[in-house]
Amino acid sequence: MSSGGTVFLFQAATMAGKFWIVMSTTNIQDEKRSDEVKLPNSRKIYLAGKHAGVRVPFREIALHPTKNFNGQMEENQPVRVYDTSGLWDDPEARCDVREGLPALRREWILERGEVEEYVGREIKPEDNGYLTAGAEEYARGKDKGRLEEFPGLRRAPLRAKPGQCVTQMHYARLGLVTPEMEFIAIRENLGREAAFEALTNGDRSSLQHQHAGQSFGARVPSYVTPEFVRDEVAQGRAIIPANINHPESEPMIIGRNFLVKINANIGNSAVASSIEEEVEKMRWATKWGADTVMDLSTGKNIHATREWILRNSPVPIGTVPIYQALEKVGGKAEELTWEIYRDTLIEQAEQGVDYFTIHAGVRLPYIPMTAKRTTGIVSRGGSVMAKWCLAHHEESFLYTRFREICEIMAAYDVSFSLGDGLRPGSIADANDEAQFAELETLGELTKIAWEHDCQVMIEGPGHVPMHLIKENMDKQLEICHDAPFYTLGPLTTDIAPGYDHITSAIGAAMIGWFGTAMLCYVTPKEHLGLPNKKDVKDGVITYKLAAHAADLAKGHPGAQFRDNALSKARFEFRWEDQFNLSLDPEVAREFHDETLPQEGAKLAHFCSMCGPHFCSMKITQDVREYAAQKELDEQAALHEGMKEKSAEFVAAGAELYQGERPEGAMREH
Amino acid sequence: MSSGGTVFLFQAATMAGKFWIVMSTTNIQDEKRSDEVKLPNSRKIYLAGKHAGVRVPFREIALHPTKNFNGQMEENQPVRVYDTSGLWDDPEARCDVREGLPALRREWILERGEVEEYVGREIKPEDNGYLTAGAEEYARGKDKGRLEEFPGLRRAPLRAKPGQCVTQMHYARLGLVTPEMEFIAIRENLGREAAFEALTNGDRSSLQHQHAGQSFGARVPSYVTPEFVRDEVAQGRAIIPANINHPESEPMIIGRNFLVKINANIGNSAVASSIEEEVEKMRWATKWGADTVMDLSTGKNIHATREWILRNSPVPIGTVPIYQALEKVGGKAEELTWEIYRDTLIEQAEQGVDYFTIHAGVRLPYIPMTAKRTTGIVSRGGSVMAKWCLAHHEESFLYTRFREICEIMAAYDVSFSLGDGLRPGSIADANDEAQFAELETLGELTKIAWEHDCQVMIEGPGHVPMHLIKENMDKQLEICHDAPFYTLGPLTTDIAPGYDHITSAIGAAMIGWFGTAMLCYVTPKEHLGLPNKKDVKDGVITYKLAAHAADLAKGHPGAQFRDNALSKARFEFRWEDQFNLSLDPEVAREFHDETLPQEGAKLAHFCSMCGPHFCSMKITQDVREYAAQKELDEQAALHEGMKEKSAEFVAAGAELYQGERPEGAMREH
Repeated sequence: MSSGGTVFLFQAATMAGKFWIVMSTTNIQDEKRSDEVKLPNSRKIYLAGKHAGVRVPFREIALHPTKNFNGQMEENQPVRVYDTSGLWDDPEARCDVREGLPALRREWILERGEVEEYVGREIKPEDNGYLTAGAEEYARGKDKGRLEEFPGLRRAPLRAKPGQCVTQMHYARLGLVTPEMEFIAIRENLGREAAFEALTNGDRSSLQHQHAGQSFGARVPSYVTPEFVRDEVAQGRAIIPANINHPESEPMIIGRNFLVKINANIGNSAVASSIEEEVEKMRWATKWGADTVMDLSTGKNIHATREWILRNSPVPIGTVPIYQALEKVGGKAEELTWEIYRDTLIEQAEQGVDYFTIHAGVRLPYIPMTAKRTTGIVSRGGSVMAKWCLAHHEESFLYTRFREICEIMAAYDVSFSLGDGLRPGSIADANDEAQFAELETLGELTKIAWEHDCQVMIEGPGHVPMHLIKENMDKQLEICHDAPFYTLGPLTTDIAPGYDHITSAIGAAMIGWFGTAMLCYVTPKEHLGLPNKKDVKDGVITYKLAAHAADLAKGHPGAQFRDNALSKARFEFRWEDQFNLSLDPEVAREFHDETLPQEGAKLAHFCSMCGPHFCSMKITQDVREYAAQKELDEQAALHEGMKEKSAEFVAAGAELYQGERPEGAMREH
Repeated sequence: MSSGGTVFLFQAATMAGKFWIVMSTTNIQDEKRSDEVKLPNSRKIYLAGKHAGVRVPFREIALHPTKNFNGQMEENQPVRVYDTSGLWDDPEARCDVREGLPALRREWILERGEVEEYVGREIKPEDNGYLTAGAEEYARGKDKGRLEEFPGLRRAPLRAKPGQCVTQMHYARLGLVTPEMEFIAIRENLGREAAFEALTNGDRSSLQHQHAGQSFGARVPSYVTPEFVRDEVAQGRAIIPANINHPESEPMIIGRNFLVKINANIGNSAVASSIEEEVEKMRWATKWGADTVMDLSTGKNIHATREWILRNSPVPIGTVPIYQALEKVGGKAEELTWEIYRDTLIEQAEQGVDYFTIHAGVRLPYIPMTAKRTTGIVSRGGSVMAKWCLAHHEESFLYTRFREICEIMAAYDVSFSLGDGLRPGSIADANDEAQFAELETLGELTKIAWEHDCQVMIEGPGHVPMHLIKENMDKQLEICHDAPFYTLGPLTTDIAPGYDHITSAIGAAMIGWFGTAMLCYVTPKEHLGLPNKKDVKDGVITYKLAAHAADLAKGHPGAQFRDNALSKARFEFRWEDQFNLSLDPEVAREFHDETLPQEGAKLAHFCSMCGPHFCSMKITQDVREYAAQKELDEQAALHEGMKEKSAEFVAAGAELYQGERPEGAMREH
């Protein structure tokens, strides 16, 4: 990424379907590689659970002490934040993309005793977009377009033994708390000491059923226990995307009674010049906070790219298998068959994909409902299936074969992400007949998937004006029986192309508050073109702040801790701590330094907004100090001896900064 | 602005009070001057009202025709949008900053017959920050720091004749429809032909009382009539900031039953090197859509800068007079007096400031309520008054002298913007005792102002998590008797410095939907430093999209027209129209061209997301065309002769792009 001119291809789910993203490094401002970005004053820590191998990562941000006005120092406790970057950000781990991450979950999976290794499906030329072996050779020889295969340890795939089911939902319903569930419980408590102590010392009873959250039917507990995680998964209210063939992933949960998650989309590179660049896309998104990553590769090298990503990804990976199936039939939707699709599901399940977007709700009778829309069908997967249905005048095979799909999903614990192929692509089309007809079918399919103990989440729109957002959430919960909702935005207006990360962050924050479990990011390039590395970061940070705003509004008990720490730092002019606690310390520091680049300015007890002569925060500190020094509480100070105090205050200079000081002078105190 | 290195000072209302903004031109990417930016395919049009001189400006965006698949062309009506740029963007007007804009409203004001010209207050050295005449000379000689005085026609100030009142509220209550009100009615209808015809042909009865809006007590009418405007102003639900000494301004209205407005803050330059640069700040903000501009200058040249801005501003100008008063006492809050403050009000009222932020609700008993806050008092004006109150142990003179202030406001028709000096500066402090105590006082003062026929709006927070936003709106409406609300954001989380235009746009869109009449913008530099020109534009565009999202949610009948036109253009691959209809055509085009810079790509019937081979929008067009060509409605098509149609469809190639075409090929059709 440092040598300009190379081109990345990313791909994103958009209002207009899933699409390609080129990450061009030529026109972006000095974006570093992931491993060149060190989040400041941070270290990786781990909290161990009771199950062997449960070591839950957090990033711990160390803070500076507060210097009181009487010169005393007061410690500020470090802040632990949720960390999606995996071992990549642990300097002691020394990860190598050619070896992949350690198989963290493998022992847990094997110990459950219900899986078998087997000789997996043979990789075919068309898996990588080469329709014949000859074409593959040609491609390799001619332009070196063939991506190198992952050289690390190649495991035989696992699947459920005949008659067994290996999904987290299955175990949850049996009453079993898996190590994954314990991992998640510790993780969701955001490293709060009290929660961790209670969890590890076994005194969990006091923690349960103390619901802190208050909004819209979400019941966020005061502390998350493994038992609570199990119950939510058993009820279908939350999913743990955790394919048994992706043991490298760190367990995470998607459900409305947990922290709101975000997804970032990536895709493969047209010029497969460097393995590192393929993996870098995933690392870049997770460094900034993506909780899951969808690999939406199309074209060549799909299989090989996915292998590289899976083996190196600490977060669950999602895909839209119809994209690869479509490549296998040369892009002609009408030539798709169930057999090709089924083979693709197995191919990807064996590799370890954690969730599949499946547009099984795009039924034949619903397609004409879109004909009078302003923007028709904008989902790529939805369009493919609409084209297939029209060409064959048959019901979608995704719908008619749904139970067979469930059997595959259950054998590997791939979670369903039931796609909203008929989502609205404009404000005009929001909440229309086609959209809600499809939702009814998704509800029906949810029940069927649950019969197979398959985990399910439901994808949602799209473009929706603010006053129609809640209806989406309410209907989804009702129709889909409380299965988690996973929405794209929604965008709250159509008139701001170039700023659609913002138009959609408004809708995303709101629907997150209302109960959506995961938000699929939108970048500034939405509708216009292919996001570069800066756009991807902008999209991730924007969605992290939207998800956090939703967590605050839901009353998640761990969420406001970071706001409070940052605001305290801001109030106390601990500039470094303010930067370090922010979602994007680099930009925060850079913006500050544009105005006051001197190092001294970061220690100053004033900011560039007001200058040293007058500072509103300083005055508040005067109010507080005044009350404290007089050893009167504030009310008493007002009612007793007003005039005397007044004289004292004026005599003392009525300013903390006594005397005149030249403009621009810095002062530590 | 084109020659790098000069430094601008802007000033903004922030969570931390009103502060300085440096517009540095050294580190921004090629921002042009306002007059170098031409919004594409746009022309200025005017709709005339019945009152003489009522010519209401709109920007009309011409669209390309739609080319149907059968080759027929279909016209697309141009889209008229609200235009705040004034005569500056009218090429026929040939404006000159040294002459100022024409005094559009002067005849209307004089015709009402209730004003008198008089010899205004003499300009004193301290008005420009020079405490003595000698210092002024010194400054001028030493460093040329003195800003040139406005050279254009210097009018004697107007004020109400003794015993008269000249506020728009006064006329509204008398039942008079002023030309300002008619201007606003035409403007708020967004140039819709039907509304205009009805308004100008006198058939207004059919338009009234058809309320289209549905949310939270807002009652947006189907069409805005002058009578509706009058009534809203008479009831105090809306204000028309229109100082009789700022006749250059184009009338606009702030009220929850109208389009949501936005404000941008600017401030004076420390290096007063160029008049054009002073005026450019205002022009830049209004070009992108600021409905009002607050001039928050401090330091030197306050009076002269304001004169330049007022004489050239087509939008109402607001100020915080306590800032200038503070300068006059050398920045020492405790030395402020009622006499100095009063003199400053008159100075600014004579110049033509349209609204004053007055922090009269920061009462002595409330100050100690802030002592235990996480971030104390963060409003600059609030802090000044808190410091004064503590120093004197006296009730604020803004509160005790409020009726005298009202008399001044009424004599010039300066609107109140009652400041929220105790607004929360962090999530932790939202909706606390101090904030709501102050709000109670603002409600009490609103009643007093209305006794004087003064127009009033109420300023609001600040930092508020989503679930507490609605309480702010509800309490404000109840306590302040439906006076318009004017909020800063609110920011919905504290943890994203560098992205606070976004954290606040979430809250702004929501509170706008709930009924807030005007949103004060926040730039990406909030909390960190001084916004440059790009930051100001980012803030304005972000707030325009938030305000528009609120208009959509409120059901404003004119709002969705632009979304629909843009989405139709998007669906029909009219790329140029999509760019031209967007809030920021430059960025939309630039983002598109990063991926597909060829001109041909903008005519192509596909986009970079999917490429020419597969396009989801294209498929939808197939669905639609298919239904239309068969002259069957969509339902019939599904139920009749499915299999036969299928065969036909496949035989016809099942693709619009028949045959193979090379990747990347462009095709117009």
